[in-house]
Amino acid sequence: MSVPLILISNDDGIQAAGLRALCEAMLTLGEVFVMAPEVERSAAGHAITLSDPLRVNEVDLGLPEVRAYSCSGTPADCVKLAILAVLPRRPDLVVSGINHGSNTGINVIYSGTISAATEGTILGVPSAAFSVDCWESPDFDPSKAVAQQVAREILEQGLPDGTILNVNIPNLPAEQLPPGLLDGQGYILTVHGKSDWQDQFDRRVDPQNRVYYWLAGRRRERKEPANTDEQTLRSGQVSITPLHYDLTHHRYLSDLAGWKLFQK
Amino acid sequence: MSVPLILISNDDGIQAAGLRALCEAMLTLGEVFVMAPEVERSAAGHAITLSDPLRVNEVDLGLPEVRAYSCSGTPADCVKLAILAVLPRRPDLVVSGINHGSNTGINVIYSGTISAATEGTILGVPSAAFSVDCWESPDFDPSKAVAQQVAREILEQGLPDGTILNVNIPNLPAEQLPPGLLDGQGYILTVHGKSDWQDQFDRRVDPQNRVYYWLAGRRRERKEPANTDEQTLRSGQVSITPLHYDLTHHRYLSDLAGWKLFQK
Repeated sequence: MSVPLILISNDDGIQAAGLRALCEAMLTLGEVFVMAPEVERSAAGHAITLSDPLRVNEVDLGLPEVRAYSCSGTPADCVKLAILAVLPRRPDLVVSGINHGSNTGINVIYSGTISAATEGTILGVPSAAFSVDCWESPDFDPSKAVAQQVAREILEQGLPDGTILNVNIPNLPAEQLPPGLLDGQGYILTVHGKSDWQDQFDRRVDPQNRVYYWLAGRRRERKEPANTDEQTLRSGQVSITPLHYDLTHHRYLSDLAGWKLFQK
Repeated sequence: MSVPLILISNDDGIQAAGLRALCEAMLTLGEVFVMAPEVERSAAGHAITLSDPLRVNEVDLGLPEVRAYSCSGTPADCVKLAILAVLPRRPDLVVSGINHGSNTGINVIYSGTISAATEGTILGVPSAAFSVDCWESPDFDPSKAVAQQVAREILEQGLPDGTILNVNIPNLPAEQLPPGLLDGQGYILTVHGKSDWQDQFDRRVDPQNRVYYWLAGRRRERKEPANTDEQTLRSGQVSITPLHYDLTHHRYLSDLAGWKLFQK
């Protein structure tokens, strides 16, 4: 196999420390291209840009082996544009992150980090999202080592069509992580949980006397099984959840078939 | 039961003809509030606004019984803000649409119409999305009748937690729709299919000699089972798919458990 081509994106934007950390981790595995939003696009969901043109600028990340571009669009735009119009060939892997903050439970639905990886998968490239459980300035060294192990295994094993790996890493020093992680063992296979937020809006009045609202809220503690993404992360372990984007609620199909609507 | 309170949103924006059609349809079933994006937000995915304040303005839709607001945010923002900060009480139903254009297959992932309904479900309110298979100016009368039948059944039966109904309506005159539809029968229960787009980017040069890209593409015909959303719509029938947002790829969990990463 020739040297793998690895495309990196994120939703924290081209200047994020976590993006740089992911570049450094991936350089040990292959050739690295970056296409990331020029500004932060957290909670971008799976938005794409239809009504505006997209701009691309080459950026110097201070890593001579990395070719990096910023894009005016969303995380999903970045990955779509890179694969379809900018990269010299089809990438072997798309990785997104390392996100500043976890992507577990309901956050997965809103996350631009996940959507970048999902777009890679939609375009047929094995893809993974990496997040570290810290909104401020984490030490990215342990997460880099984790990303390397996971990415190496994906490059070796491949992923079935339509599958994204969602990796969440606790914000712990390397010596407090479970033993074996940095040798590629001891990761925890999880399911997408239901942890969510107690949302509220702050209603304020601006200097022109007009009302505006800020989204505010705090994480709600939910009782849920130990094998969920959030509970695994809470226990200090690295959670890996296989996600897909077949949204059919299969378990409910037979109940629903009894509705009058579906009678002939 | 008191008169149901119905919240309406969309991604085509507050001025869309499909939004007005959905208001007219819902007025026969309950009290109607609207909170919709002030501009078009198609393909907004499940984006929410974290870094900017949200503005709300009351709008006269020319329907005296409808209280309507436009919002500076995304479809998901509209529903979240309406339910948590603006509505006089918790709604009994959230409906989104009627979207100009179908939301089947991969479009479901990108759709702001779906995300408005998903947000309703996340907040614990039964929710449905309605789309008609026409990007231009459909006759909304048949779709209005369909939306009424489906909404009435949801109000009567309820929906299990975490379930969204995704309704796609062919762009046909009432007399060409399957018999029984307007009496609330003959709808087709479907699964979320894989129909998608052959995407490409048009690379252009602006008058300042700078490069920009437009997303372009056309629908790809895929062979897929007859019980998918897209194939059902193609056959001239109304497709109803129950969606959820548990993204776990359950079928792949056991395969993945064999990876070295998950060994102790």
